[in-house]
Amino acid sequence: MNFTMVTYIIGWILQIEAAFLLLPAIVGFIYHETDHSLVYIICALASFVLGFLIKLKKPKTRDLYTREGFATVAIGWIALSAVGAIPFTVTGDIPNYVDALFESVSGFTTTGGSILNNVEALSHANLFWRSFTHWIGGMGVFVFIMAIFPIMGGYSINLMRAESTGPAVGKLVPRVQKTAKILYLIYLAITVIGAIIYMICGMGLFDAITTIFGTVGTGGYGILNDSITSYSPAVQWAITVFMILSGINYSVYFCLLRRQFKDAFSISEVKWYIGIILVSTVIITFNIRNMYSGTLESARHAAFQVGSIITTTGFSTTDFDLWPSLSKTILVILMFCGACSGSTGGGMKISRWLIMGKTIFKELSTMVHPRQVKKIHMDGHVVEHETIRATNVYLASYFFLMLLSVLLISIDNFDFTTNFTGVVAMLNNIGPGLSLVGPTGNYSMFSVFSKIVLIFDMLAGRLELFPMLIILKPACWRKY
Amino acid sequence: MNFTMVTYIIGWILQIEAAFLLLPAIVGFIYHETDHSLVYIICALASFVLGFLIKLKKPKTRDLYTREGFATVAIGWIALSAVGAIPFTVTGDIPNYVDALFESVSGFTTTGGSILNNVEALSHANLFWRSFTHWIGGMGVFVFIMAIFPIMGGYSINLMRAESTGPAVGKLVPRVQKTAKILYLIYLAITVIGAIIYMICGMGLFDAITTIFGTVGTGGYGILNDSITSYSPAVQWAITVFMILSGINYSVYFCLLRRQFKDAFSISEVKWYIGIILVSTVIITFNIRNMYSGTLESARHAAFQVGSIITTTGFSTTDFDLWPSLSKTILVILMFCGACSGSTGGGMKISRWLIMGKTIFKELSTMVHPRQVKKIHMDGHVVEHETIRATNVYLASYFFLMLLSVLLISIDNFDFTTNFTGVVAMLNNIGPGLSLVGPTGNYSMFSVFSKIVLIFDMLAGRLELFPMLIILKPACWRKY
Repeated sequence: MNFTMVTYIIGWILQIEAAFLLLPAIVGFIYHETDHSLVYIICALASFVLGFLIKLKKPKTRDLYTREGFATVAIGWIALSAVGAIPFTVTGDIPNYVDALFESVSGFTTTGGSILNNVEALSHANLFWRSFTHWIGGMGVFVFIMAIFPIMGGYSINLMRAESTGPAVGKLVPRVQKTAKILYLIYLAITVIGAIIYMICGMGLFDAITTIFGTVGTGGYGILNDSITSYSPAVQWAITVFMILSGINYSVYFCLLRRQFKDAFSISEVKWYIGIILVSTVIITFNIRNMYSGTLESARHAAFQVGSIITTTGFSTTDFDLWPSLSKTILVILMFCGACSGSTGGGMKISRWLIMGKTIFKELSTMVHPRQVKKIHMDGHVVEHETIRATNVYLASYFFLMLLSVLLISIDNFDFTTNFTGVVAMLNNIGPGLSLVGPTGNYSMFSVFSKIVLIFDMLAGRLELFPMLIILKPACWRKY
Repeated sequence: MNFTMVTYIIGWILQIEAAFLLLPAIVGFIYHETDHSLVYIICALASFVLGFLIKLKKPKTRDLYTREGFATVAIGWIALSAVGAIPFTVTGDIPNYVDALFESVSGFTTTGGSILNNVEALSHANLFWRSFTHWIGGMGVFVFIMAIFPIMGGYSINLMRAESTGPAVGKLVPRVQKTAKILYLIYLAITVIGAIIYMICGMGLFDAITTIFGTVGTGGYGILNDSITSYSPAVQWAITVFMILSGINYSVYFCLLRRQFKDAFSISEVKWYIGIILVSTVIITFNIRNMYSGTLESARHAAFQVGSIITTTGFSTTDFDLWPSLSKTILVILMFCGACSGSTGGGMKISRWLIMGKTIFKELSTMVHPRQVKKIHMDGHVVEHETIRATNVYLASYFFLMLLSVLLISIDNFDFTTNFTGVVAMLNNIGPGLSLVGPTGNYSMFSVFSKIVLIFDMLAGRLELFPMLIILKPACWRKY
């Protein structure tokens, strides 16, 4: 393990976070929350100095192989969250540090599940920071560093692979750094356009900015206790559209920018994604039509919730825990489904399901025609054996971690639906589950132990399991 | 597809079932239920004649490749269950045929989940038949045919592979027929010894016979409404032991018979099986100790329920739906766990979990040491790539089928815990789940549509998915 290189990068992370922490300080000044602003400034200074001290020891080589890449990203995210939680506690808005860490991890991992009973009691600075963590975590902080500072050279791909989503992380252009830059520019553009459209639909500036952070990062922190319920239908529709856009593979936008329209609209994962959203919305609209004042209203709630869950955002416009069992079950299945790979969304990703589905069909075909040699294709390319294997191992690990987590948090003695959907919502970075952790509930009632389990699940879900699993393996920490 | 060979074997199945149907007829005569006995005799005759007519068309070749093997077993099990359900309906004890089919499938697949509110209202003939279906299904009807009649020649392995349990079906001795014979003899021996021990512990003859059928087949149909609750602690402990023995890989008994003690006790799957049972029992005993009058009583209930669920039997001595969340969650995880491969138990099998676990560790090792070429070993042998692939495809199919089934039965609008644990209990051939399908509940409230979904799940679970999936594939039915 190239320890100095790992700590060197962690130093960078802390310095970048210091810069980010200045934004809520500015927000605090605007809203005359000077004491909170000072907290953020001090935290920023401390984070900067700490990063500076860590970076004093320069690495001899810049080698960063898979294991260091994965371990660095895991530790980087833990450090990011640990520092990001401090202002919540120091300002007194979330006095307990484990709760603040939960909130911070839930922010950076774009989960959006809260331990707060009353969000509206937070200061503007804290509300801004809380939502801004979604924006940082959505596209990824390592991708951000790569886009701005060329510190990693040829090894960046090992960091990008650990932080980006989906079974096979590709580059848009040959150079990793340029890919990172393009991704962030697209991300920024969608953010700005979204905020403007939200304001046109009637949102105030602060609401629009914080809400768009939660939308494009597919996070889900709102600034009101009832999430998106009290905004106008126009705003709700606008958020629905931007949530769904944020769950799409970013290479689609890259193709569109390059005017490669045929490529953009031929990606099968995106077609399935849109198809699943449409079918789910229609079924739920039909299923809940008696609960609302008309088909249009039930369609609005159905589309919003489907978009919110499949993209793993977690906003809500209504208490879907009261919906009929069929609609709730569709939402639970969408929790497993997840968004497109290469998006900011969490979950298992539709491409993994496609690979699994194709593997099953291939297996059945092989039984029928044993001498047939068949490869799995996707979008005209052969899916590499490596990708299929990684997908299978991912599924097995996912299953193990899910069952283990449900077991561990069941010690708190809440009901099975709460525990099961809670873990699924954390592991897939969604936010709300059903029952006690439904849209009107939150995670505050869990014990410290359960919160730590769920914090691990959120990080494991965001980093797609392996970075968080590898740091648990002692062999990872041995020197070469 | 060699259709005549498939129908020829189905003919055999019906004739064997005709012979089996005579046993409840005898039981009926003993208990002066002459009308029910006559029903069984008529059904036996009809089944025999139908089998005879089907067998008139002799197959030209005896070729039976994988796909025919799998399809034959699937159709054979459907035919077996369809015929086995008729006496329930004709005797009037289960007037609705879909309910009777559910009960019959639940019997043959050794699930043991019932649609009956009052089991004690059944005649002795029906109670006997209901429990006897567990015994037939436990080791498998195709294995039975192979053991007695050498009809298949060299192709028997394709049938055995479809009907036996676990990721890699092995033969105990080089000849398939002899393997089948040894398996059935061991099975018979355990049945007889078990029945005698049950009687020594104080059970009546009829109770002992029906209960041992449910035990060694890992089925779970009791003849009392409260399952095993009202039997003495001695009987409950005896059943616990025999359930656990029935979940062990039968090759252990074969090794013991051959005095290969070292081989018998070195199988890692069996060690894990015993270890999981011990750990789960200890935790649950501790967790429920305040609900019962002492540690011994809570240990008895804990051991019984752990044995009942991990072996997928489904008997109960207490309403575990009232247990604390931790204990219930352990039971739900044991539902996924399943017994040893090569046993009569259902579920995913511990060996599959071991293979998955080893795959995950191998993946993490490869990340740490990329140049290391590592193979997965189990019990000193390299696990073949084919077995690993089959395990992965099994897991993916299992996950798909589970989510789809939960979705489909959620249309009935019962709660999530009922739907989820109900499907898990059916797919793993356990019987009871939690909430409405808990130990004091049953499956009667589901709609006809949901019952058909669950019937499919039980068959898919017993035949380990692929036989039931392959018959859904049109290409399976094409001629060569």
